[in-house]
Amino acid sequence: MVTDPALAAPDELAGSSDEAAAGGGVSSVHEAPAGLWRHRHLLDVDVLTADELELVMRTTATMSEVLARPIARVPALRGWGVTNLFYEASTRTRVSFEVAAKNLSADVVNVTASASSVTKGESLVDTIRTLEALGARMLVIRHATSGAPWLAAETFGGSVINAGDGWHAHPTQALLDLYTMRTHLEGGSVAGRKVVILGDVLHSRVARSNLWSLTAAGADVWVCGPATLLRGFEAWAAAGVAGARRFTVTSDLGAALRDADVVMALRIQRERMASGLLPSLREYAARFGLTRERLAAARPDALVMHPGPMNEGVEIAPDVAAGSHSLITDQVANGVAVRMAVLYLLAGARDAGARE
Amino acid sequence: MVTDPALAAPDELAGSSDEAAAGGGVSSVHEAPAGLWRHRHLLDVDVLTADELELVMRTTATMSEVLARPIARVPALRGWGVTNLFYEASTRTRVSFEVAAKNLSADVVNVTASASSVTKGESLVDTIRTLEALGARMLVIRHATSGAPWLAAETFGGSVINAGDGWHAHPTQALLDLYTMRTHLEGGSVAGRKVVILGDVLHSRVARSNLWSLTAAGADVWVCGPATLLRGFEAWAAAGVAGARRFTVTSDLGAALRDADVVMALRIQRERMASGLLPSLREYAARFGLTRERLAAARPDALVMHPGPMNEGVEIAPDVAAGSHSLITDQVANGVAVRMAVLYLLAGARDAGARE
Amino acid sequence: MVTDPALAAPDELAGSSDEAAAGGGVSSVHEAPAGLWRHRHLLDVDVLTADELELVMRTTATMSEVLARPIARVPALRGWGVTNLFYEASTRTRVSFEVAAKNLSADVVNVTASASSVTKGESLVDTIRTLEALGARMLVIRHATSGAPWLAAETFGGSVINAGDGWHAHPTQALLDLYTMRTHLEGGSVAGRKVVILGDVLHSRVARSNLWSLTAAGADVWVCGPATLLRGFEAWAAAGVAGARRFTVTSDLGAALRDADVVMALRIQRERMASGLLPSLREYAARFGLTRERLAAARPDALVMHPGPMNEGVEIAPDVAAGSHSLITDQVANGVAVRMAVLYLLAGARDAGARE
Repeated sequence: MVTDPALAAPDELAGSSDEAAAGGGVSSVHEAPAGLWRHRHLLDVDVLTADELELVMRTTATMSEVLARPIARVPALRGWGVTNLFYEASTRTRVSFEVAAKNLSADVVNVTASASSVTKGESLVDTIRTLEALGARMLVIRHATSGAPWLAAETFGGSVINAGDGWHAHPTQALLDLYTMRTHLEGGSVAGRKVVILGDVLHSRVARSNLWSLTAAGADVWVCGPATLLRGFEAWAAAGVAGARRFTVTSDLGAALRDADVVMALRIQRERMASGLLPSLREYAARFGLTRERLAAARPDALVMHPGPMNEGVEIAPDVAAGSHSLITDQVANGVAVRMAVLYLLAGARDAGARE
Repeated sequence: MVTDPALAAPDELAGSSDEAAAGGGVSSVHEAPAGLWRHRHLLDVDVLTADELELVMRTTATMSEVLARPIARVPALRGWGVTNLFYEASTRTRVSFEVAAKNLSADVVNVTASASSVTKGESLVDTIRTLEALGARMLVIRHATSGAPWLAAETFGGSVINAGDGWHAHPTQALLDLYTMRTHLEGGSVAGRKVVILGDVLHSRVARSNLWSLTAAGADVWVCGPATLLRGFEAWAAAGVAGARRFTVTSDLGAALRDADVVMALRIQRERMASGLLPSLREYAARFGLTRERLAAARPDALVMHPGPMNEGVEIAPDVAAGSHSLITDQVANGVAVRMAVLYLLAGARDAGARE
Repeated sequence: MVTDPALAAPDELAGSSDEAAAGGGVSSVHEAPAGLWRHRHLLDVDVLTADELELVMRTTATMSEVLARPIARVPALRGWGVTNLFYEASTRTRVSFEVAAKNLSADVVNVTASASSVTKGESLVDTIRTLEALGARMLVIRHATSGAPWLAAETFGGSVINAGDGWHAHPTQALLDLYTMRTHLEGGSVAGRKVVILGDVLHSRVARSNLWSLTAAGADVWVCGPATLLRGFEAWAAAGVAGARRFTVTSDLGAALRDADVVMALRIQRERMASGLLPSLREYAARFGLTRERLAAARPDALVMHPGPMNEGVEIAPDVAAGSHSLITDQVANGVAVRMAVLYLLAGARDAGARE
């Protein structure tokens, strides 16, 4: 339970920083048992054990307390270069990582493909070597190609965090979703709860990562949408996540929503229309849009979630998105805390010599 | 006259920060009577009373002193998240707000439409909710749609500052123009002074906001340009600003410039040509361009201003723009001080519980 | 050897900053004899004397030590506004200057042409006046037009650093190349060493600046490439750099590589194909690509360099780029140290009243 002192900046250990003075002490950050964390990178949630998920959740709770302070800043990552390398546009994820890293006093550099020499045809591997030579010790990467963060991890000498790769994985989203559910479900656990992921499951890295973490945490997960947007998931469900953990695949929206504890609507990408997978946004909304009437089939206190950005009136009705059970804004706020926790744990593991 | 202590960061109150050591003390910042300020947002200058305009001017003078220090930084907004949300490209306004916020030790996040999920069709309201959940307590917004900042203010839990909306309003520009005029006019007041706003008045949020603040401060305001670029202003002049304060509308450039104390040339947007409102840039320059010969009709010490960016040789001749009476660079420098003052006053009002 | 105290922030002089506590003292920074530096701007390396080159090298070595600290930050430029004004996209150069300036505790503002009112047709001179009024004291500029930084220097009241202008000059690249060679060559000097610059010399600002600094430092420089990409260099070589210092121009790759100590491959711009200067990338690679076989003609321990971004498989083979003698990543890391040194020396000269 003792944190590696290397993680703490001098001010913090001395207890004399003005952050401490303003915020009432940062010692609580040290209660996160960083020593249990063994991973050098966070590429997906599939490798996380139940204990590790629990550690992320506890560390996130600590970071949420930091965020509630008047000055939400701790010196844990002082002197660490954190580089956000985004090959796809994003407001919420890029800003979320930027704010999280700055709250830990890291030095943040933003690199976006559109404004960089990435457009000159430089290879991903060279870009990553360059960013490391420029001082990056943590690399947050979003890329349209599934697997790109794994390639990055093979090259990069520091820690790589996957901020979304193609249709594949979005581990910090899954972690913030889990944290958000736990803090709003009675008993603080998703075990045995019915969680419905609704919409374009096929193209969703959010759905894939959530399937790993939610089934690991014992939830009864249902994925639901038009059959064309569920392709391949029947086979995965039959085999089981990690060859064992079952989930349910259905296009029957009524069956999916019945007595659900949590309903997570996914974004419908307008470009899916062109590929013939969906007839029209209007038809999708008519058949699968999450409306108040449909939500009535779920449990009375069912939680509503969405990873954003929303197409209101398509996959989710405006009154549901803004309703009293909607956690959509909580998800965003928890995203900052989860990313602070992940950066903190990875830094601690690095200092402890993690090589995985 | 006592500032809410919550506005001051610990260092500042203790008087022991190194900023204080470097800059000779920050106590002067506390002399701004923030308690008089009642507004939670700054959407336009129309709601500001004469006393409030005076308060902004005095606070700006204090911030100008801060800017003159070797290290122009005070801790007033430590721990405050300030987000610049720009749906229109801008160098000077975005950088001006960024520098102003950083000088107050705020944490600044820049979001531009072109590099954000704004382009994914997310609604303005959702974007604003998201930015608030990500930690923004002050939102600086520029938008091509008139009224967008008012919509933002209905949603956002913090303070909204309008950094320019459509043709409608640009309050910090009007405040920096007023401050610049006062610091260069004998007597330090625009009351009774002839101020000419020259050019594309129709499409100018700068002109509209200046009409409110300059008439409130007692200036004799003339707006001048081709008749096609003055449409609607005759009626407004007849009704009076706030139903009372008169100004003059004319296409007679000679009459406008005669004995003028201040001449402010507005940018001619090249895209106005396409809409048939102007025959050509050359013709505009020939008839309404601010040349040295024309300026000779004004008072000998007449001040020359321009909100930038300039089309030199179109609405203003290069020798006039670079002349000894040109305040164009002063306007830019004062913009940082005015924005520091506005952020400071809004923060103070927030801490004091302003809810307007 | 005494540094002007004005360069040091209060913490630094007092020796009590936490940077000092974390990093083991910053006093070594003061050993750089900033008093010898007389230049207000760094526009190209052609004006640097041998002593001045030596001073940059020694200061860079000090900055490399700073970079090796756990918290690579010194307060030398606290309160200095450094603005990166990039009219051409760049990852490595922009981030390199940004990290360098932040490591010196400067306040950094990034302005890129694509996201700025630069696109509104504002003149370069006005943009520069505006950035100065917004607080910039150091301006780092990259521009597609040769000579633009000289125009900037005529206007700007602070220091201008050329981060690459057209085909013309890229002085910090030449300095980092020189530093990288010296730290890897036995004896720590390029004097008498055979240095080959290979590729599209015609369009390369990197080649031009390196010709100045490498010949000044006594290297035996060869430039090599297709005749179409060497135009004008024969005449320059005949006249001599600075009218005196010779170098060799050849399209004979074998002669160029024979017994070379250093081989620097230049990027081939794909757009050169369109202009008819190169038949195809494949043909270029076949005739001039730097392969392991060709490199065998050089000295066994020959150093391989590239300014990046690379087209691997075109101007350089992947195994050469990743080979044990490749310094490409060192170049990037040294770029941060060189830029810290340049910013530091320029700031010192400014405080000492340099007016050149």
